Amino acid sequence: MIEIDGNRLNARIDAFAAIGATQKGGVNRQALSEGDRQARRLLAELGAARGFSIVQDPMANLFIRRSGRQDNLPPLLIGSHLDSQPSGGRFDGALGTLSALEVLESLEDAGIETDRPVVVVAWTNEEGCRFAPGCMGSMAFASGRIPPEWETKLATDGAPFVGELAATLESLPMADMVGLGFPVHAYLEVHIEQGPSLEASDIPIGVVGGIQGTRWLDVTVTGQTAHAGTTALAYRRDPLRALTAALSSLYETVMPADPDARFTIGRITVEPGSVNAIPEQVRCTVDLRHPDQGRLNDLEQRVASMIATEADRQRCSALISRSFDMPPCTFSNVLQQAIELAAKDRNLKSASMLSGAFHDALFVNRVAPAAMIFVPCRDGLSHNEAEYVEPRHAVAGCEVLAAAALRLAGNA
Amino acid sequence: MIEIDGNRLNARIDAFAAIGATQKGGVNRQALSEGDRQARRLLAELGAARGFSIVQDPMANLFIRRSGRQDNLPPLLIGSHLDSQPSGGRFDGALGTLSALEVLESLEDAGIETDRPVVVVAWTNEEGCRFAPGCMGSMAFASGRIPPEWETKLATDGAPFVGELAATLESLPMADMVGLGFPVHAYLEVHIEQGPSLEASDIPIGVVGGIQGTRWLDVTVTGQTAHAGTTALAYRRDPLRALTAALSSLYETVMPADPDARFTIGRITVEPGSVNAIPEQVRCTVDLRHPDQGRLNDLEQRVASMIATEADRQRCSALISRSFDMPPCTFSNVLQQAIELAAKDRNLKSASMLSGAFHDALFVNRVAPAAMIFVPCRDGLSHNEAEYVEPRHAVAGCEVLAAAALRLAGNA
Repeated sequence: MIEIDGNRLNARIDAFAAIGATQKGGVNRQALSEGDRQARRLLAELGAARGFSIVQDPMANLFIRRSGRQDNLPPLLIGSHLDSQPSGGRFDGALGTLSALEVLESLEDAGIETDRPVVVVAWTNEEGCRFAPGCMGSMAFASGRIPPEWETKLATDGAPFVGELAATLESLPMADMVGLGFPVHAYLEVHIEQGPSLEASDIPIGVVGGIQGTRWLDVTVTGQTAHAGTTALAYRRDPLRALTAALSSLYETVMPADPDARFTIGRITVEPGSVNAIPEQVRCTVDLRHPDQGRLNDLEQRVASMIATEADRQRCSALISRSFDMPPCTFSNVLQQAIELAAKDRNLKSASMLSGAFHDALFVNRVAPAAMIFVPCRDGLSHNEAEYVEPRHAVAGCEVLAAAALRLAGNA
Repeated sequence: MIEIDGNRLNARIDAFAAIGATQKGGVNRQALSEGDRQARRLLAELGAARGFSIVQDPMANLFIRRSGRQDNLPPLLIGSHLDSQPSGGRFDGALGTLSALEVLESLEDAGIETDRPVVVVAWTNEEGCRFAPGCMGSMAFASGRIPPEWETKLATDGAPFVGELAATLESLPMADMVGLGFPVHAYLEVHIEQGPSLEASDIPIGVVGGIQGTRWLDVTVTGQTAHAGTTALAYRRDPLRALTAALSSLYETVMPADPDARFTIGRITVEPGSVNAIPEQVRCTVDLRHPDQGRLNDLEQRVASMIATEADRQRCSALISRSFDMPPCTFSNVLQQAIELAAKDRNLKSASMLSGAFHDALFVNRVAPAAMIFVPCRDGLSHNEAEYVEPRHAVAGCEVLAAAALRLAGNA
């Protein structure tokens, strides 16, 4: 058994929330910005003050390492990220990173030796807002290389990726440098759910079994623009009529028929976009998710054929292309069981669930067993300055992480 | 019987199309621009060269007047407009204005005296693109005043309305000034159909019985944005799902059930508009048209209740407001009969029809009997650089205008 210091954890969350704080109580601490550097520095200083070693890799992934009795065994890795959305919350990423630091400090406080080293990680650019894509740090860690095309990337504010990365690395002169990717025994990440289900069922611990597959489609339906007043029905080739018929039918069937499916239209644009003109062309995005790759394929097929059929009925043409394709990921059963047991030890109710959003764990899972611990957030709100986690839930997530970490790092 | 000069008419159409010509064969000659002034000057010079008097009013409506035997009787007014859309065609407006000039010149060529004066008019800013609303010239003529709120209007290019109007008036120093609005015996306007029905039924002359009523609605449906991946169906309040359900049902019923109804969605916007976010809010415009005011009221009611019902089903709220409301207009039966007779005299097939678009005739109709003559345009295209009228159809429209004008101006 290991006792964590809940007050210290919540005080740390407050301290990090002050870096890049927004007026509405949220955080703007985008990847590789000055705020992000400040947060990394604070994390490194807190780790160094306890005598842990501070290491970073060429992607500026930051590691705080506590030695094990068999110090050359692959470490147990625990952590999350410190970067935020432009108007993000105080918990997304920071909660998992600071919970991991709290585990390291609690082990130190209690003088507990582990067989394996335990390493806290803060991954670079999970959010993907200032530089796309998200999860750059864990992606590069898992593949062992920085893709050459990233070298020419520019931030939304115009800053070059290469320069911002270099400045971030330079801002931690006390850190030793390691190569990208090293053997990992297992990876655990605490994160807020970013959805409403734990709160709704009053369960403090989600044991995350995997991450849904995601596929993004770009849909274009083209008809012919014409005057709204002068064009009778028989002469219309209205792409918006085709698209609304298809979407309406998909909304009524896809999710109602399969509770694991997600079908979202986040963006529609209409050209020419004039009140008194039948549209020439409409475009929309489709976000499809499913934990099963085969069902994801079926869904894409259904969306495509429904849109093609309705376009045809309106004498329009339809074009559909994929803009993003992330296969589903399944987390380690052994790690899930370790989390379940840890929750049971702490008398905390837990439930198995899937993550609808990507996380760094998805990429780490490609090279080492990984799993995640979710805690409830108020009203399911995230990517929002009003994001909120009750202190008792933050503490519960950290306690479960600590117990599972102790089991996985070995304390025979 | 009066013979018009078809070659002269078509050559004039070409000459005016050169003013503000676009690369793709269309015209950009927006209201009160330098191109518009140049076209007015050319019209005034052509009229002055034949000895007609040139007059303008404070709205820069331009009149070319040929005296009658009883010269103080209210004149027969014939014409249209010279301004164009930003990427407009060569015929919209110009055809009617130049057909009217051709009638005046043909009367002069043949030495035919009429009882009443015949006056050609080029109305200011029919299109309403550079300065909104459209039909400013005829609207001010019909009401006898320039609405004071127009004085602060700015063009889409930032130019002040007052300054551009003054410069346009000054660019015609040879024109006498008259007050806004004067008694009119009758008004006839030739115009391209801007729709496909005459061409489809191979009829060269449309006798326009009136203009549909038009009502524009702004619809806002508000739900709650949430993560596309993490939010299960039960937690969604998706305003786009509500809107597509309502629109899809309206598309399937409104126009199919009533051939006189027009239902068009020209614009949709989605907030926040992110591929992986359920929308917070969607807005769209609705363009409803019907020749019968009661049915227009019914349609608006139906749209509102359908959207409210579907918003309710998705636990969203809906807000609907009118942004424009133009009651239907019915043209003079006497004038319609005069046009029909004129077509019959010329052995031209004609058909009664309604106009789906507004025209200056709608406003003149409020103070004098008015009617319109439509001619076919290729593929129903208008407000488009590819707009095209066959020369024989331009000539046919002008012949019918000439014959009807002679009948209405009196030649006993």
